Amino acid sequence: MNGAESLVHTLLKSGIDTCFANPGTSEMHFVSALDRIPGMRCVLALAETVVTGAADGYARMADRPAATLLHCGPGLANGLANLHNARRANSSIVNIVGDQATHHRPLDAPLTADTEGWARPVSAWTRTSSTAATIGRDAAAAVQAARTSPGQIATLIAPSDTCWNPGGVVAEALDIPPAPTVDEGVLSAVARILRTGEPAVLFMGNDALRESPLAVAGRIAQKTGARMMAPTSNRRIERGAGRQAIARLPYAVEPALAALKGVKHLILVGAKAPVAFFAYPDKPALLYPEDCQIHVLSRPEQDQGEALARLADMLAAHEAAPAAERVKMEPARGAVTSEAVAQTVTALLPDHAIIVDEGVSFGRAFYPGTANAAPHDWLQITGGAIGNGLPLATGAAIAAPGRRVVSLQADGSAMYSLQALWTQAREKLDVTTVILANRKYAILLGELAGVGAAAGKTAMDMLDLTRPALDWVKLANGMGVEAAQAQNMEQLADLFAAANKRKGPFVIELLI
Amino acid sequence: MNGAESLVHTLLKSGIDTCFANPGTSEMHFVSALDRIPGMRCVLALAETVVTGAADGYARMADRPAATLLHCGPGLANGLANLHNARRANSSIVNIVGDQATHHRPLDAPLTADTEGWARPVSAWTRTSSTAATIGRDAAAAVQAARTSPGQIATLIAPSDTCWNPGGVVAEALDIPPAPTVDEGVLSAVARILRTGEPAVLFMGNDALRESPLAVAGRIAQKTGARMMAPTSNRRIERGAGRQAIARLPYAVEPALAALKGVKHLILVGAKAPVAFFAYPDKPALLYPEDCQIHVLSRPEQDQGEALARLADMLAAHEAAPAAERVKMEPARGAVTSEAVAQTVTALLPDHAIIVDEGVSFGRAFYPGTANAAPHDWLQITGGAIGNGLPLATGAAIAAPGRRVVSLQADGSAMYSLQALWTQAREKLDVTTVILANRKYAILLGELAGVGAAAGKTAMDMLDLTRPALDWVKLANGMGVEAAQAQNMEQLADLFAAANKRKGPFVIELLI
Repeated sequence: MNGAESLVHTLLKSGIDTCFANPGTSEMHFVSALDRIPGMRCVLALAETVVTGAADGYARMADRPAATLLHCGPGLANGLANLHNARRANSSIVNIVGDQATHHRPLDAPLTADTEGWARPVSAWTRTSSTAATIGRDAAAAVQAARTSPGQIATLIAPSDTCWNPGGVVAEALDIPPAPTVDEGVLSAVARILRTGEPAVLFMGNDALRESPLAVAGRIAQKTGARMMAPTSNRRIERGAGRQAIARLPYAVEPALAALKGVKHLILVGAKAPVAFFAYPDKPALLYPEDCQIHVLSRPEQDQGEALARLADMLAAHEAAPAAERVKMEPARGAVTSEAVAQTVTALLPDHAIIVDEGVSFGRAFYPGTANAAPHDWLQITGGAIGNGLPLATGAAIAAPGRRVVSLQADGSAMYSLQALWTQAREKLDVTTVILANRKYAILLGELAGVGAAAGKTAMDMLDLTRPALDWVKLANGMGVEAAQAQNMEQLADLFAAANKRKGPFVIELLI
Repeated sequence: MNGAESLVHTLLKSGIDTCFANPGTSEMHFVSALDRIPGMRCVLALAETVVTGAADGYARMADRPAATLLHCGPGLANGLANLHNARRANSSIVNIVGDQATHHRPLDAPLTADTEGWARPVSAWTRTSSTAATIGRDAAAAVQAARTSPGQIATLIAPSDTCWNPGGVVAEALDIPPAPTVDEGVLSAVARILRTGEPAVLFMGNDALRESPLAVAGRIAQKTGARMMAPTSNRRIERGAGRQAIARLPYAVEPALAALKGVKHLILVGAKAPVAFFAYPDKPALLYPEDCQIHVLSRPEQDQGEALARLADMLAAHEAAPAAERVKMEPARGAVTSEAVAQTVTALLPDHAIIVDEGVSFGRAFYPGTANAAPHDWLQITGGAIGNGLPLATGAAIAAPGRRVVSLQADGSAMYSLQALWTQAREKLDVTTVILANRKYAILLGELAGVGAAAGKTAMDMLDLTRPALDWVKLANGMGVEAAQAQNMEQLADLFAAANKRKGPFVIELLI
């Protein structure tokens, strides 16, 4: 058994059966091993940012890691931006990065790069294997690190000789350390604060945004008068009809401050205290009142459901809070607005769909406007590195077959990772993509004003994507995905309804 | 004057008047400053790998750096693969990376990343500015570092408050250190070796491959019987009719060893001693004979032209060697082969064209087959991080208006950076792109055999791009570039001739 075979066997033993891949020469033994070892689904992508973003989407929906397969330092580098997003989502990913043979590295051949140096800023665990005999146990350790709560990125660098040499040893799966429990004293302190009735917000992130913890938090809020709120960007929110609704903190500084105005206690449940996405001249950086106290009920790596359940018991918060109701509505007609798109999505969303939201500037009404849609999951870009949406949707569809993925995607952001459409076609994934084609970097127009910068002709030209206009129908067709353009809400409704019923991917270019 | 204005003024004073950009919020003051300060051409790209690859192409053709403008750590990360190629080309680039405000960074907002950590592996010089008052002199130091021979990458990280705060100070351009001269003793030693008549190769890289040093080396070779050879991959070779021809070392191990068989002396002129691109089981890593001696005439950062001229004087090598002749030929007809494409390019190449070669597996006959074309420059991918060609062509066209750029581009590689076509359309660049559509990662089929890995159905599936086939006419049209498909050599000749005569870009999808 060579090292590559021991690596694949070990990944399978540790529960990894999906690999998003853009391989090169140094990964050929890994690819070859897949032929002889059944059980690993290998998904090809034509750019590494698709590989890593898809692994992120997969982890969020599967609740377990996929592997990535990347080629040397530059292949990893091309995937770093979406690994940055995945790190901010606390997604569980095992990167396998092939590299120069151990004895070849000192020769500094052209593709040699500082693979470890690039990996470390996004990885909780980084290791370069040194022999075929030990790469198996390195892989088991990588999976253990990746599955450690709340989900981490582990990067295993595999020099080509550690893959091709004989003497590979398959390693058993290692135990995953349990999530640390919440101290009783912390629970008591938070319960005491909530009992005072002073204005309080349960600020809930990460796994606190799943259906069950949200329902428990709803009971606590109902009993104590505390409000519930989620950070601006989140890995996954289970929401829609039958779920406990939760508002998100607005992105912009002023509305965020308004949302938390008067709050005396911010109780963190798997979330960090909110700060502005960027600094702006003469605006505050912390998004909560100066006299607001921060209390940590549970850190992201703790068990949010357990912490909330114990807190609810302590508060005798037994009565279920009203969940979001299903509101039947007609698809919107007429002019294309953010609110109208939310209405149409609500009207036509299949049950248990997965919505991937990279709507950026145009998308601000999508979340509030879909609270009463059929039950669904809401995935967002978490690290601000745009170009996350199409890959996320691709990975989510692989993780959740049978569920429709609806990808609401700004056009400027889509261009960073449009290659994802090809993988959607190849794997026949049930993804409906709505490209929100405003043909500009609209978010930057707001940011330009926000930082107090003047905008003349040259500056405006840098934010303008009309010269030439992108044609998303042709771009999608060019990668084997059927597509059509919608210029008004009637057309969007017809296309969206039809797309959601078909097998495989479809792209709607919505002119906004 | 704010920091951003002092930064732009300083770049202009230091001779940088072109900026390839994909800006975000933290770069808005830089963009805004461009409105008030004339003289900086700002070229927008829709993905950062296009930004950095274009800056590489620009530097190779302009012999001076452009700036890039990138957004925070993840924006830089998306550009690292082509910065890796640029580093291997010794290209001169000044990266300006906007980032979180100095006082905001400790808050770890979502887009915060280890920007310096990602920059360092590709940068000879990295600095994070700390105040608006000092960012001007930081910029001058960055340009000095970038222009230091043989060309380097300098990365200046600009926290947003160093751009928006007042108190900016414009810095004068700093002196560029001269290239170190070659020691007289080294010249004498090399001359002595060449006089022995033992089998010797002048192994010439970097600026030794420009027209004048090549001509001098031709005189030396003619006088001494030494051969001339270039590395497999090179930043820029001035060649074609009227220039001294030079062969390149083959990529694969066996042909490379055969090319240097029997050589007793390898004389390095701005090149490194050749090593295999990858290690392979049971193949040597060094591509020259075991008893071959390595002599360094001049290192990459030295003045190759001066070293060769002094060596030629010492050897009394005054007689010009025969240059490549212009051979008129007809465009090829019939079946599409690598040799036929080279023939058609030779027949139809405009004078002083710039050929960008990322032909990968199919392109192996392109270089030898075009030796007798009209005079032209030959640019290659230097670091093995595929996806270099379309951006290189874009930057070369910006640097050399009036010269036709011919981009010979493998399809698999093209998919990493296809967004470059949009910039070519926007800037109306005179680029003829020939997409070599074999619809597979053909290079990896060879590599799979080379590393001795078996290939079954799963492995072959990872190298296959036919499911679905990419349609490059639609992809190009989708980004505003006119395009057509050629299925045989007659069609290629017609399209290639017409494309080279038109203003602006054109894409030919050649089915191979």
